[in-house]
Amino acid sequence: MADQEVKLLGVWASPFSKRVEIALKMKGISYEYVAQDLSNKSPELLKYNPIHKKVPVLVHNGKPICESLVILEYIDETWKSGPSILPKDPYARAMARFWAKFIDDKCFPSIWKIRKSQGEEEREKAIEEAKEQLAILENELKGKKFFSGDEIGLVDIAANFIALWVGVVQELVGVELLTKEKFPRLCEWSDDYLNSSIIKETLPAKDELLDRFRAMFQRTD
Amino acid sequence: MADQEVKLLGVWASPFSKRVEIALKMKGISYEYVAQDLSNKSPELLKYNPIHKKVPVLVHNGKPICESLVILEYIDETWKSGPSILPKDPYARAMARFWAKFIDDKCFPSIWKIRKSQGEEEREKAIEEAKEQLAILENELKGKKFFSGDEIGLVDIAANFIALWVGVVQELVGVELLTKEKFPRLCEWSDDYLNSSIIKETLPAKDELLDRFRAMFQRTD
Repeated sequence: MADQEVKLLGVWASPFSKRVEIALKMKGISYEYVAQDLSNKSPELLKYNPIHKKVPVLVHNGKPICESLVILEYIDETWKSGPSILPKDPYARAMARFWAKFIDDKCFPSIWKIRKSQGEEEREKAIEEAKEQLAILENELKGKKFFSGDEIGLVDIAANFIALWVGVVQELVGVELLTKEKFPRLCEWSDDYLNSSIIKETLPAKDELLDRFRAMFQRTD
Repeated sequence: MADQEVKLLGVWASPFSKRVEIALKMKGISYEYVAQDLSNKSPELLKYNPIHKKVPVLVHNGKPICESLVILEYIDETWKSGPSILPKDPYARAMARFWAKFIDDKCFPSIWKIRKSQGEEEREKAIEEAKEQLAILENELKGKKFFSGDEIGLVDIAANFIALWVGVVQELVGVELLTKEKFPRLCEWSDDYLNSSIIKETLPAKDELLDRFRAMFQRTD
């Protein structure tokens, strides 16, 4: 289980890649970062993730693991050093998995849909849907600093795109989603999350993301 | 962790509900089955799964767990008796999670899309897509009796709709998907799976499913 030969195939602007970087740093694992260009996929990416051809891919001693949430669980089960990413109690673990899945299946697509929407009516509908999902997360934060309790855990890491990328979508699309008035707990969580040391050193600056996504948002694909 | 008060809210014709029934039976856990009518959702379902309002929901000592794959992991972590649903080794666990997710995210929607497709061209495209996903699973079975190896595990249980429900879709829609010529390993797996004792006693008869889905498939929703 030694942390020899740990390699991460990632994209710096991807919230999914960043999940894995955060987990590796939380556990204090040294790794080689191999930046990927998704517009020109590398032989290494195609070899290690032939099915989805996506980042992130963690390669541990030559063996690839794909899908960011699967990787986070793998890291937690393989390296026992450092803080736990998932709680110990089976029910708390189930809840963490439920919320991480909710973020991936419901929140992320609903927010992304805003950008893809065509015309005023479709956009308004997409915004309403996204707000409904965010309201569910807002409620889940009741009485807690982080989704995982007092410390950052699986759900917080899974939600990192809400802490940072949502602001980018807001600015580029020109919508108001995550306001202090409507989502005070999520906004506070976002501040606490982005200001914690490992997160701050791992996530990119918002301006860099704005530059990166501006070009993409201007295209119609 | 005693198996007092284990309740399953389910629908008999749902492959997702059946996953949980199979896991509970594998572990030898007594449980109360509470059949749900999704066209008229019960106060109990809405109370225990207010977010998705779907089956299955496992209620253990009053605490609900939703999402079938999350429930399977919870069962495996809570009841150590009986065979393991996930392997012990972290890499093998990651692979099991990867494939279960692949089945839910790729195979299930692609097969369901065949039924939803409108017109010849769209249907042909949907069939091709579904076959591509099935070919990936076919390849994964190389040299193995079950997806999990010699014994049934997480991926097999996750794939139970391929063993039984795909045949129902085939018959009702009038397509050929899972043929012995094209998918010999998946067909053999399906036979072995459906003939193993717990699966045989848990899954419904194909004719009952045909009757159940025929009405649904005739509607245009």
